[in-house]
Amino acid sequence: MHKTKILTLLTDFGLSDVYVGVMKGVIAQVNPTLNMVDLTHDIPPQNIAAARFCLMSAYPYFPPGTVHIAVVDPGVGSNRRAIAIQFGDSFLVGPDNGIFSGIITSSDVTAVELTNPSYWRTREPSTTFHGRDIFAPAGAHLASGVPLEQLGTAINPETLVQLPIPEYRVTEAGVVGCIQYSDRFGNLITNIPGTLVEEKSWFVEVDKYTILGTTTYHDSPPGNLVALVGSHGWVEIAVNCGNAQQQLQLNWGDVVKVILSK
Amino acid sequence: MHKTKILTLLTDFGLSDVYVGVMKGVIAQVNPTLNMVDLTHDIPPQNIAAARFCLMSAYPYFPPGTVHIAVVDPGVGSNRRAIAIQFGDSFLVGPDNGIFSGIITSSDVTAVELTNPSYWRTREPSTTFHGRDIFAPAGAHLASGVPLEQLGTAINPETLVQLPIPEYRVTEAGVVGCIQYSDRFGNLITNIPGTLVEEKSWFVEVDKYTILGTTTYHDSPPGNLVALVGSHGWVEIAVNCGNAQQQLQLNWGDVVKVILSK
Amino acid sequence: MHKTKILTLLTDFGLSDVYVGVMKGVIAQVNPTLNMVDLTHDIPPQNIAAARFCLMSAYPYFPPGTVHIAVVDPGVGSNRRAIAIQFGDSFLVGPDNGIFSGIITSSDVTAVELTNPSYWRTREPSTTFHGRDIFAPAGAHLASGVPLEQLGTAINPETLVQLPIPEYRVTEAGVVGCIQYSDRFGNLITNIPGTLVEEKSWFVEVDKYTILGTTTYHDSPPGNLVALVGSHGWVEIAVNCGNAQQQLQLNWGDVVKVILSK
Repeated sequence: MHKTKILTLLTDFGLSDVYVGVMKGVIAQVNPTLNMVDLTHDIPPQNIAAARFCLMSAYPYFPPGTVHIAVVDPGVGSNRRAIAIQFGDSFLVGPDNGIFSGIITSSDVTAVELTNPSYWRTREPSTTFHGRDIFAPAGAHLASGVPLEQLGTAINPETLVQLPIPEYRVTEAGVVGCIQYSDRFGNLITNIPGTLVEEKSWFVEVDKYTILGTTTYHDSPPGNLVALVGSHGWVEIAVNCGNAQQQLQLNWGDVVKVILSK
Repeated sequence: MHKTKILTLLTDFGLSDVYVGVMKGVIAQVNPTLNMVDLTHDIPPQNIAAARFCLMSAYPYFPPGTVHIAVVDPGVGSNRRAIAIQFGDSFLVGPDNGIFSGIITSSDVTAVELTNPSYWRTREPSTTFHGRDIFAPAGAHLASGVPLEQLGTAINPETLVQLPIPEYRVTEAGVVGCIQYSDRFGNLITNIPGTLVEEKSWFVEVDKYTILGTTTYHDSPPGNLVALVGSHGWVEIAVNCGNAQQQLQLNWGDVVKVILSK
Repeated sequence: MHKTKILTLLTDFGLSDVYVGVMKGVIAQVNPTLNMVDLTHDIPPQNIAAARFCLMSAYPYFPPGTVHIAVVDPGVGSNRRAIAIQFGDSFLVGPDNGIFSGIITSSDVTAVELTNPSYWRTREPSTTFHGRDIFAPAGAHLASGVPLEQLGTAINPETLVQLPIPEYRVTEAGVVGCIQYSDRFGNLITNIPGTLVEEKSWFVEVDKYTILGTTTYHDSPPGNLVALVGSHGWVEIAVNCGNAQQQLQLNWGDVVKVILSK
């Protein structure tokens, strides 16, 4: 049976212009049967950290063989490498600028630089839109069964650019971490794994607030702050029927403390 | 012939985060050949009435066998039921919070509570994202041919939560109704069926305005108010080349009178 | 082998309402196997010039046989014609209001008015939503192999409505043109073809600014103005890591001069 393959797209291109549509056209030129799924195109322009978080949050939910193309690429046209990575049975395609950091942690990873022009859209790619000229066709060929090795020169995964990612720290009282993402509901997502508070009594200290740790938004009256393990698997600060980001004015990197009851 | 099946998605998740993309990944894990169509993801957060209107406006245009997943779900994690409904030859999947009211009016409806964990993404669904863990996989299985009955316990359709929907009233002079939706062009859509004014002379009274009933936007000069039967089939107030909502400042529930000429 | 066909959609409907979703439902009713791709739905309301630019920028990247449906249609319900055009091995479907000007320049073009109600959604199309009732089903039938001629009455391509498009002018010093589009990054795209500056030394004069012509965003420090041939193939004014439109406050039609060094 010929299985339909999934190819996802994540960019900071927005949907007002035709940049994303053009990438899909190029992909369809390679293989019109691919099932193309948008992760999001509203990454804040050139915000590699937000792109990394979104991709990390989404890729585990896709079937084996899925190709993820991620293009947040402030370095396009410079000498940053264009790469493709196989990890497990999925593929990542995009610029080597840290956008894949923290996603590929295992050693079971193969990486190539996309140096083979046979898999570009044109032998003379533009200097401003590698999404169209290199990443889209390379990803479409991968999803169509072209082996990773044919796309270019093998590179040592240890040489891939890494983003400095703020780490959480276990303390005597609990865990100290920070905000790593705010979603459009204003939910503030920390970098503290939910597993650290599971089946415990806990609360969050942030700014001048103390917020009870609970399991659903409804454990607090509408308008009240609540801390819970969100669907991403991280400790999250929310407001039941409200917007925690607007209420607390916290941003990327702001410190959050989880206090565990003895 | 193996027919491609359509699965639609309607949420208040927006497109800035990866929530919608994650649901599509889960759907593709069940069946990568499904043709996924977005109805809209810009329902105002937790606005069940707007979601209901949008779904009601869209579902009649889809082919038999289509599965519509609708997730505007302020009660996620509480004890509201997760449900799937078969009506005619289409399917609705989502929370039992009134989002399907007025859509399923016939008695020819079968409904189940989604209690069978075999058709969830995981036996331990999160308390915050049933769209990913219950509705997406249940909908994907339905669209792939799993019978409704297998998804869970049968429920009496008469016990489904109903939203209080403002009704129009036929009077001596015409019809009294209200605004039920404002689209992004600022067209104000009432709850008065277009059939009540068909082939008649009519006008609308709203606030201090009297607006002539007509058939196209062009029957009035640019910038002028016009009343017509919109593409949804309801009496609608518009401004030719303009925005009626901004001009009139009318909102959900505001009274609109249709006067029929004798 | 049955090839999956691509059908693209470009409108000013936005994604907040279900108008686009409804068009996709109608398309799926005709043929659920079509691969539907959004070019953009964020054309400024009723801005035919922007729609034309976006369509012109995107269509060359799609495979042969692709059908492009474009609906920016302020004249819906008036006596403007509904048309379909075959040019080369692609198809264009939409209102005859200039939206296709400049795209179909060759004489190798066939055009019909969509007068055959067998290929409409209903024999009584609404006066407000031809996207749903005429263009979507006509496009879906075209993509499914119905010959253009069956969709309606042949029309002389020379009678198609043309948009007045500002032209550039070669002068002694270089080229005088204007801004024809601003994308969401604030890149200002002129109507001056990149081929006129290729392999030359050049700079741009606009307002009180003189901007060096270069090849990538990175040839200028962050925050600085730069002129280059953008991915669309036109001379473009950008700010490295910034927004040229906000910085220069230039709009559609504003004059831009390219000066070529001897």
